[in-house]
Amino acid sequence: MTEIGVGVIGTGFMGKAHSIAYSASASVFGTGLRPKLEIVCDLSPQRASQRATDLGFSRYTDKWQEVVEDPAVQLVSVCTPNDTHAEIAIAALARGKNVWCEKPMSTSLADSAAMAEAADSAKAHTIIGYNYTKNPAVTHARRLVEEGRIGRISGFFCRYDVDNEADGARPWSWRMSRASSGTGANGDVLSHVISIAHFLTGSEICRVVGDMAIVHPERRDPNSPDSLKNVDNDDMIAALVHFENGVHGHIGASRVTWGRKCGLRWELHGTEGTICFDQERLNELQLFTRGDDLAMAGFRTLLTGPQHPPYAAFLPNGGHSLGYMDVKICELHDLLSAIETGKPVWPDFQAGLKIEKVMDAVDRSALSGKWEDV
Amino acid sequence: MTEIGVGVIGTGFMGKAHSIAYSASASVFGTGLRPKLEIVCDLSPQRASQRATDLGFSRYTDKWQEVVEDPAVQLVSVCTPNDTHAEIAIAALARGKNVWCEKPMSTSLADSAAMAEAADSAKAHTIIGYNYTKNPAVTHARRLVEEGRIGRISGFFCRYDVDNEADGARPWSWRMSRASSGTGANGDVLSHVISIAHFLTGSEICRVVGDMAIVHPERRDPNSPDSLKNVDNDDMIAALVHFENGVHGHIGASRVTWGRKCGLRWELHGTEGTICFDQERLNELQLFTRGDDLAMAGFRTLLTGPQHPPYAAFLPNGGHSLGYMDVKICELHDLLSAIETGKPVWPDFQAGLKIEKVMDAVDRSALSGKWEDV
Amino acid sequence: MTEIGVGVIGTGFMGKAHSIAYSASASVFGTGLRPKLEIVCDLSPQRASQRATDLGFSRYTDKWQEVVEDPAVQLVSVCTPNDTHAEIAIAALARGKNVWCEKPMSTSLADSAAMAEAADSAKAHTIIGYNYTKNPAVTHARRLVEEGRIGRISGFFCRYDVDNEADGARPWSWRMSRASSGTGANGDVLSHVISIAHFLTGSEICRVVGDMAIVHPERRDPNSPDSLKNVDNDDMIAALVHFENGVHGHIGASRVTWGRKCGLRWELHGTEGTICFDQERLNELQLFTRGDDLAMAGFRTLLTGPQHPPYAAFLPNGGHSLGYMDVKICELHDLLSAIETGKPVWPDFQAGLKIEKVMDAVDRSALSGKWEDV
Amino acid sequence: MTEIGVGVIGTGFMGKAHSIAYSASASVFGTGLRPKLEIVCDLSPQRASQRATDLGFSRYTDKWQEVVEDPAVQLVSVCTPNDTHAEIAIAALARGKNVWCEKPMSTSLADSAAMAEAADSAKAHTIIGYNYTKNPAVTHARRLVEEGRIGRISGFFCRYDVDNEADGARPWSWRMSRASSGTGANGDVLSHVISIAHFLTGSEICRVVGDMAIVHPERRDPNSPDSLKNVDNDDMIAALVHFENGVHGHIGASRVTWGRKCGLRWELHGTEGTICFDQERLNELQLFTRGDDLAMAGFRTLLTGPQHPPYAAFLPNGGHSLGYMDVKICELHDLLSAIETGKPVWPDFQAGLKIEKVMDAVDRSALSGKWEDV
Repeated sequence: MTEIGVGVIGTGFMGKAHSIAYSASASVFGTGLRPKLEIVCDLSPQRASQRATDLGFSRYTDKWQEVVEDPAVQLVSVCTPNDTHAEIAIAALARGKNVWCEKPMSTSLADSAAMAEAADSAKAHTIIGYNYTKNPAVTHARRLVEEGRIGRISGFFCRYDVDNEADGARPWSWRMSRASSGTGANGDVLSHVISIAHFLTGSEICRVVGDMAIVHPERRDPNSPDSLKNVDNDDMIAALVHFENGVHGHIGASRVTWGRKCGLRWELHGTEGTICFDQERLNELQLFTRGDDLAMAGFRTLLTGPQHPPYAAFLPNGGHSLGYMDVKICELHDLLSAIETGKPVWPDFQAGLKIEKVMDAVDRSALSGKWEDV
Repeated sequence: MTEIGVGVIGTGFMGKAHSIAYSASASVFGTGLRPKLEIVCDLSPQRASQRATDLGFSRYTDKWQEVVEDPAVQLVSVCTPNDTHAEIAIAALARGKNVWCEKPMSTSLADSAAMAEAADSAKAHTIIGYNYTKNPAVTHARRLVEEGRIGRISGFFCRYDVDNEADGARPWSWRMSRASSGTGANGDVLSHVISIAHFLTGSEICRVVGDMAIVHPERRDPNSPDSLKNVDNDDMIAALVHFENGVHGHIGASRVTWGRKCGLRWELHGTEGTICFDQERLNELQLFTRGDDLAMAGFRTLLTGPQHPPYAAFLPNGGHSLGYMDVKICELHDLLSAIETGKPVWPDFQAGLKIEKVMDAVDRSALSGKWEDV
Repeated sequence: MTEIGVGVIGTGFMGKAHSIAYSASASVFGTGLRPKLEIVCDLSPQRASQRATDLGFSRYTDKWQEVVEDPAVQLVSVCTPNDTHAEIAIAALARGKNVWCEKPMSTSLADSAAMAEAADSAKAHTIIGYNYTKNPAVTHARRLVEEGRIGRISGFFCRYDVDNEADGARPWSWRMSRASSGTGANGDVLSHVISIAHFLTGSEICRVVGDMAIVHPERRDPNSPDSLKNVDNDDMIAALVHFENGVHGHIGASRVTWGRKCGLRWELHGTEGTICFDQERLNELQLFTRGDDLAMAGFRTLLTGPQHPPYAAFLPNGGHSLGYMDVKICELHDLLSAIETGKPVWPDFQAGLKIEKVMDAVDRSALSGKWEDV
Repeated sequence: MTEIGVGVIGTGFMGKAHSIAYSASASVFGTGLRPKLEIVCDLSPQRASQRATDLGFSRYTDKWQEVVEDPAVQLVSVCTPNDTHAEIAIAALARGKNVWCEKPMSTSLADSAAMAEAADSAKAHTIIGYNYTKNPAVTHARRLVEEGRIGRISGFFCRYDVDNEADGARPWSWRMSRASSGTGANGDVLSHVISIAHFLTGSEICRVVGDMAIVHPERRDPNSPDSLKNVDNDDMIAALVHFENGVHGHIGASRVTWGRKCGLRWELHGTEGTICFDQERLNELQLFTRGDDLAMAGFRTLLTGPQHPPYAAFLPNGGHSLGYMDVKICELHDLLSAIETGKPVWPDFQAGLKIEKVMDAVDRSALSGKWEDV
């Protein structure tokens, strides 16, 4: 087993998740490249030092440049705030490093395009952290589509609801401003929906009509409790969409839905069957396929198990349940396999850019009131 | 208990359903007007005679005019094909009869408008058979909204999927042609969605952008098995919608979704909570309301019971389950109460016309590619 | 269609349910015997008169003897308190009337045995109202067993939980005394479980070991608010059971389970598959059958529809949902078909007696602490 | 953060699971003892060497004695076949090592008692791997009980069904013989049920009546395909149980239930509420608590989140789902905290012995046909 040196930039939740994935990967899969935790970076040297110890890195730094320049590092995790992704990722690619970048790709289409261009020029692999497509239940769904089990795809429907900002009493934050954050629910939440749309259909959204709503248009100013600040990006976003392969669908997202914690639910309709999924029950796939015996027909619940790769690398028996972190390990495994074999991995920066373009088209359409091409 | 003479025109499923409701109503409620089954009409006199016996009518006829002119009849059920609703209902109203008309109202906006006008002129009550709004679980949802339990409504999302035409091998039928049937999934299925949208929000959809898809554009000609005929109305329909009270939402319907038999599912989002419902589990309401104790928060399943009127008229204990036919009896009860008290009932022909106008706007928008006002 | 005169004794919930079933039966099925509502009986003549009007009977009485002696009556519904079933049913049978008797059969094994003997001697049909076995979902389960879809039955597991007496602050009632009511949850609730056990397995429980618990051993005396009365029958009852065909299982019931309204849930295990059911979702059957393709295997939800007789008599499309009252109509239909054809119907008084004997064995075992033969 | 040297004996699924937990623990929790992966043992030196590399151990051996004698090792994982647990654990305890031993404890009550005695004499911590009690959803359930949210516990009901041996065509194995394996479903599966019973009720089962069934009494001899061998231990096991605190319940397990992969489902009934759980949906707890407003009452689904410790150590947002491996990390964390603080941890070898005694009593009762004391 060959080692691959890794560096992680950013030590929030995602930096921690990447680090745990690096630690566990070889134990789980027992084959392929073995990550070696070289260096971790945080703006605070104290925190960087502490996290190096906790997470098992050999070194730490408070300057991300040291990570991308570190000769022992061949793979860089970009887990910093969204508006720094482009600079870091492009610098890493310029030095030939492979890059595992969290979603969304960046905060502007121009930055994302520059990242994709940098990836094209580099002899390195890239991946964007759209982890929900890496769940064995979801890759099984894609396999069922490829095997023709639901026939020709006829519709894709997906919403992703969370409650992060459901409470109108929460104060204004930078996330609620176009100037500081770009779109709202669109970039934060709908981006996952689009990644799944592309993954499951094997096609891409090419035309949209969108609509947005600001449910709490004014929020308390955190710096001036008696005054209010305007929210000017989307609490809710939705679109009717057309795919290049002719499929129609609708997608939507909200950051203000009470009771939904990770409420990503999709349906894939086909001429021979239907598949449904709910991220809050990530080990279950609902499948209906037409059959002759109507008295025996019904949606069946496929419980993830060893017959759904790479589940068997984690657990020998079905029904024992993977969690969020396990899916992140699957995502890393896809990247490491690509680096080892030289084969492509999805969603790389090119695929990520296509997702960003759909987000942009939805936003443009919500503002223009017209159907827009991606 | 005063009797009210009733006549039923049409003896298909809906004629049967109305007749059973008339038979059971007094037994269930034990108060108010008691229906007396006077006369039933079917185009076939043999069938009319047979159904009179089965369903318990005193007389039968093969001419609908005899029903609307019968002096013993004060309430007429219109359960005939959609394109005959207007003529019959208007004739009944002209004679001062109350009218229980099945949905959709008619096959053209002009006909529906004429019906609404006739209802306005008549001193009689009308109701359109949007039965899914009469379920005690659903009226309880509306009550929760009125009590402010979920705060201000912020979003409404609903799909209604059925599998009636999912099988591409089914032959062409008149339902698949604009000339003979008008719209497809829009009129057949989406109409229910719109009725629920108006009922739950207490507002009306005023602006839409729609999209349609024809999943099986050619089907076998039933009269010429070797040739194909074009399908030119919508297998799938969807729209983004705005309500007059400022709520945004999306709605959709399909007649080609494998595995969905009565797949009407809606979500109502509010600033203090969320309510969800699935018609295939019609005795359950899912409710989330914000609360202080996060460790105890979650969607709760309200199982319909005596505390959800008029459930107690049917069953003394919760969880014993109402069925489709029971809800139809609730619908009749609303109409009879209105007739008895002189108070309005919803959805009357005016409310029905508003639903038709939304269907029309969705259709216009799907053809024009633009947002359309209702 | 031949008419059959019916009389109903008792006008509580069950008297009402029987009456509604009599009214609707011909409308729903359109074939066979047509019930004619001749006479209804209540101890209060005022109430009897009122219910005759509401429920559509021609005559009323306050003496049950008049019903069983009425020459126009061929079928008598016994919907009175349990301790009067035997006397009324035996009197009706002695006059050759068919009898539809509510469950449980009586309040003593001796009475039930006398009823069974009377039924044996009479040329009449009898049925006990174990309605949960008449649901098309449940009869479909039995059909699946008979077709061998789950192989040889290996286990039966069932609990029935309700919350009728969950609140410890509810005052003492006659139901909580062996002297006045016999057993508690055993007779009230477990009896349904045993009826399902016999129906689904096609066998009978022959040996049991039981256990009971009194969760609220003292309750407030309703006649003397400051004093307490002892509860001396079972709030909870459970048993391990053996069937004559060698199947093992366990059964249980409780009248003190918060949150369960009609919490009757069973599982049937076989050597080739498993079937599960929950009465609170009475239109769904969960079925797993072994198959070769593990990646496609899972429990499927069979939604009741026209392919599950006699659903189609009620509704033309699947997923539209039957309710409690519809199942009661199915029960009546079974009885009427038996009367019309002369074929047996299940559960007649002989089958009912076998159920009572199991209840008795469970009670004896709970008291003796030993396995007991039925 | 202090390091603690760990050694793992056995490299099957559980050896791998322990090793991954050791790797991830410090990353997840960031506090307390930090495991240092010193040495791993497998009977095959080749496999030991390979697993040392994959799992990240410094050394390996093919002799378990080297692990328990290794001075760098303070904590030993016993992940070997059940009949070797006692010898290894006792040897480790004799050298003052802390022991994390997989379940079931051993293959005889005498061995388990010797283990408990050794633990008593040693100044070391022990834990048995009953991981299903370590799930934050389940520990939250226990907390709700302790807070009195469901009042006084009145009943505990639990089944654990798996399909490991459901296929009657599977050949005979050593697991199907009392001589080689002891009990069947009892030791393999019911042991988990008992651990949960003790954990949730805070009491212990003291009296049982049991029943067993052998569903496939003969299986193909793997060494002689044309002949059959007898299965003489339990495919199914069940018991009615009494707890020391007066609670009644029933428990059951099966290794031959088609469609159940990890079908561990329990219900805890109390005088003020009910809690239900299904291990196949391990991130959900169903809770009903009585309340005044009946129209708003229902079971609520608590989705595991940061308010359910130690979920927040894994993920910042609710609904993102823990998996089996995460729960194993929780289990380790409990042990490490105990070692660090000197406080007790549950279930240690004493608690494990009590679980074994219940299994033994169920087995004795199933053979004797009598209620047996534990």
